[in-house]
Amino acid sequence: MSFDLVLFGGTGDLAWRKLMPALFQAFRHGSLPPGGRIIGVARDDLSDDQYRNLIRARFDQVELAKRPSAEEFDRFAALLAFVRMDASKPQDYQRLAQRLRERNADTVVMYVATAPGLFTAVCEQLAVAGLNTPKTRVVLEKPLGHDLASNRAINETVRRVLAEKQVFRIDHYLGKPSVQNLFALRFGNALFEPLWRRETIANIQITIAEDLGVEKRGAFYDSTGALRDMVQNHALQLLCALAMEPPINAHADAIRDEKLKVLRSLKRWSAESLGQHAIRGQYTAGRIGGEPVPGYREEPGVRPDSTTETFVALRAEIANWRWAGVPFYIRTGKRLAARDAHITVNFRPTPHAIFNTPLGAANRLVINLQPKDGLELHLLSQGQDNRHAPRPGSGTAAQTLTPVHLDLDFDKRFGSERVGAYERLLLDVIDGRLNLFVRSDEQEEAWRWVEPLLEHWRGESNGLRPYAAGTWGPSASSAMIARDGFCWSEEC
Amino acid sequence: MSFDLVLFGGTGDLAWRKLMPALFQAFRHGSLPPGGRIIGVARDDLSDDQYRNLIRARFDQVELAKRPSAEEFDRFAALLAFVRMDASKPQDYQRLAQRLRERNADTVVMYVATAPGLFTAVCEQLAVAGLNTPKTRVVLEKPLGHDLASNRAINETVRRVLAEKQVFRIDHYLGKPSVQNLFALRFGNALFEPLWRRETIANIQITIAEDLGVEKRGAFYDSTGALRDMVQNHALQLLCALAMEPPINAHADAIRDEKLKVLRSLKRWSAESLGQHAIRGQYTAGRIGGEPVPGYREEPGVRPDSTTETFVALRAEIANWRWAGVPFYIRTGKRLAARDAHITVNFRPTPHAIFNTPLGAANRLVINLQPKDGLELHLLSQGQDNRHAPRPGSGTAAQTLTPVHLDLDFDKRFGSERVGAYERLLLDVIDGRLNLFVRSDEQEEAWRWVEPLLEHWRGESNGLRPYAAGTWGPSASSAMIARDGFCWSEEC
Repeated sequence: MSFDLVLFGGTGDLAWRKLMPALFQAFRHGSLPPGGRIIGVARDDLSDDQYRNLIRARFDQVELAKRPSAEEFDRFAALLAFVRMDASKPQDYQRLAQRLRERNADTVVMYVATAPGLFTAVCEQLAVAGLNTPKTRVVLEKPLGHDLASNRAINETVRRVLAEKQVFRIDHYLGKPSVQNLFALRFGNALFEPLWRRETIANIQITIAEDLGVEKRGAFYDSTGALRDMVQNHALQLLCALAMEPPINAHADAIRDEKLKVLRSLKRWSAESLGQHAIRGQYTAGRIGGEPVPGYREEPGVRPDSTTETFVALRAEIANWRWAGVPFYIRTGKRLAARDAHITVNFRPTPHAIFNTPLGAANRLVINLQPKDGLELHLLSQGQDNRHAPRPGSGTAAQTLTPVHLDLDFDKRFGSERVGAYERLLLDVIDGRLNLFVRSDEQEEAWRWVEPLLEHWRGESNGLRPYAAGTWGPSASSAMIARDGFCWSEEC
Repeated sequence: MSFDLVLFGGTGDLAWRKLMPALFQAFRHGSLPPGGRIIGVARDDLSDDQYRNLIRARFDQVELAKRPSAEEFDRFAALLAFVRMDASKPQDYQRLAQRLRERNADTVVMYVATAPGLFTAVCEQLAVAGLNTPKTRVVLEKPLGHDLASNRAINETVRRVLAEKQVFRIDHYLGKPSVQNLFALRFGNALFEPLWRRETIANIQITIAEDLGVEKRGAFYDSTGALRDMVQNHALQLLCALAMEPPINAHADAIRDEKLKVLRSLKRWSAESLGQHAIRGQYTAGRIGGEPVPGYREEPGVRPDSTTETFVALRAEIANWRWAGVPFYIRTGKRLAARDAHITVNFRPTPHAIFNTPLGAANRLVINLQPKDGLELHLLSQGQDNRHAPRPGSGTAAQTLTPVHLDLDFDKRFGSERVGAYERLLLDVIDGRLNLFVRSDEQEEAWRWVEPLLEHWRGESNGLRPYAAGTWGPSASSAMIARDGFCWSEEC
């Protein structure tokens, strides 16, 4: 099966940092199907060879497990080509069409890694140029819109020129081995399903914490904010993987149907209750790893009176039989105390206690996503010192238990050389597997759920809480969860 | 609370190897209640000081984490005393009574570590000498009888002179931290209870494998066999801890009531079906750790035509709502491939598979008792290589999962200096905690269940299968479990 992979934005940041290294890894591992070609597309005036040389130079700057030898790179470079074109100019698409006709590959992947404003134009022009054939697949990077209306507008344009099964909407979180593994854990093991329900689970927490600030993306971030940047996509995808019913099979639509059901079951907030279910914050100057860092409003590209949130904590509920009454807490932010993405499934305490339990200690499953990929199962056991059991007559015969945990470190188990998110997703596109891509109705439903918050927060500084860089966000985040009688994983 | 601990068999093997070291550890750890005295009793003609010196000499031969300094031993030795007496001679008990009157301690523990034939005599003579007061506690070591009738005879004698709550029947397995922890795991955690039932569990396996032979106990062992030596007591106690319903509290009788219910629920075998539910074996010459070892019939003290079993594999069923239809396999033997005691809880496979599963891989919880004390939770996850998912159209979209496991090593978590079985049990006796001791009705019920097997095997070589030392026993053991579609943990 031959393929052409066309990379719009072929000299852009994403191409250099993520896509080319991922394609090279796939090539090196022998998992790139034979008969492939990778065509960079950009406005630069480059020959195929000049493009190859640029990539070779870039490979010295990115993180690759092992630098390619000259011979190895040459074999990879043989797959590379370049087409100069301005994606906003209809006439330029003919040059691309001509290069594609050279080979007439079985599959043509159009990876649109350009500025978001160009997505619809690219799709429309592909149609004009007759490049939206049944063998075409289009990959769209986020952000796909800025709110429900703009997202629907994009999806409607795309739908006019492509069938849904030709559209691969990337949420790179879904490409992470640790996130894919959520599906394997839940539906490849009989052990979790009987526990995975309101009768047994007290609450579920999703934390995606970054210690970095906005870096060079100040202007972009300031018009986006944490809710759009992280919650509407990544965090809600994690929530779907955690909460969905078992799919009838592992095919893309079976999985996406179930995820969509979760999103549709999310309780809608009334305007009055929003304050109790959503906290937003913005970082001020503080310290990260002992070093002083500036506040958000001092970052380059950020408006000095910005009310954009760099932190969000939400309390979601899923109104269905499995989850009614179980809070799902979502928390994400920049300049937090650590780079740490993890999920904590907190189980209810034993219904009847015959042992003494240390305060706050209960069973929990921690799914570590970042920086470590692993599992921790926290239990209570008899402690080291089983000598000092209280005597009968001292009021209780109950022993006090000790927290312990079982561990699994996937990096240790499999080596840290697991297939990266972009490598996996690119191979899936080439192979036509849609499982790890987001369907338009899912995406719209996620926007629909965050829409009331977007509106509530629009231009309002009301409720925006400052937090010092290097902390876990505003204290209101802890207060929100404490009202339910719970605490964030690092506080318990 | 002052105590006198009287050690019948005070110069015997158990006293030297287990009891004195355990008492010393308790003393060293400060967990021996103050105001205690330890009185060795034996026929030897020793003064208190001579007895102390004997113990000091023995301490150089046993395994103690740290040798006592002279000063430390002297402080311990101050607790020691000796009474010369023949436990079979009524008049000698007066000498003991006299020593006890010296102090009139709050609690008097009589630890009967003598030949089993003396148990009833000791109890009767204690009564004659008026030493069965309400402050008396009697500890009885196994074997308590040779079958149901002899066990009942002992228990009836004991019952005539002591209340049940004064009788501490030792099963030292219950003193092991890993075995006590079974109760903590099951009833101190909300996580296991929903899984702990026929709907989720396919089978449970209890393995107590020794690589040693009969050592110096040939004559004793030859009149006992594996069924009496290991199954009737240790293995059935483990089965009770695994299968019992949650007790209403952690008091001794609440726990023992539930264990008794399990024993009463054990399915009785018909004489015809015994061959399908019980395998016995006897080791022949073989190799352990590369070294040749003799067969059982060549061991000193063993009759050359002995039909005593050194291996037993049983298939038990518990006829109640929780466990109906779930086989419990018990296996124990000498000269097996490893010293390895562990429990494997095998969960059922997923009721509906959306992933490919490697043959025989399913969820299981392994509770390691010996030589390691730990937990392993075996799951299936996405593998290292998530690149080679099959393509759509190749017949299946299903990924093949990879076995992984979560680990908990209690020795690492708590240090290997946990309280030993005898230390724990001795402190329990002194404190009057009966939780880890076996009540007479439990013991009788366990004998009642093994009785048909004892009868079936009595003097019969029929069904006795040879196995080479260093293997996992006769192949019939594997065949028995294979008939149910399962396999022993090391075979899967």
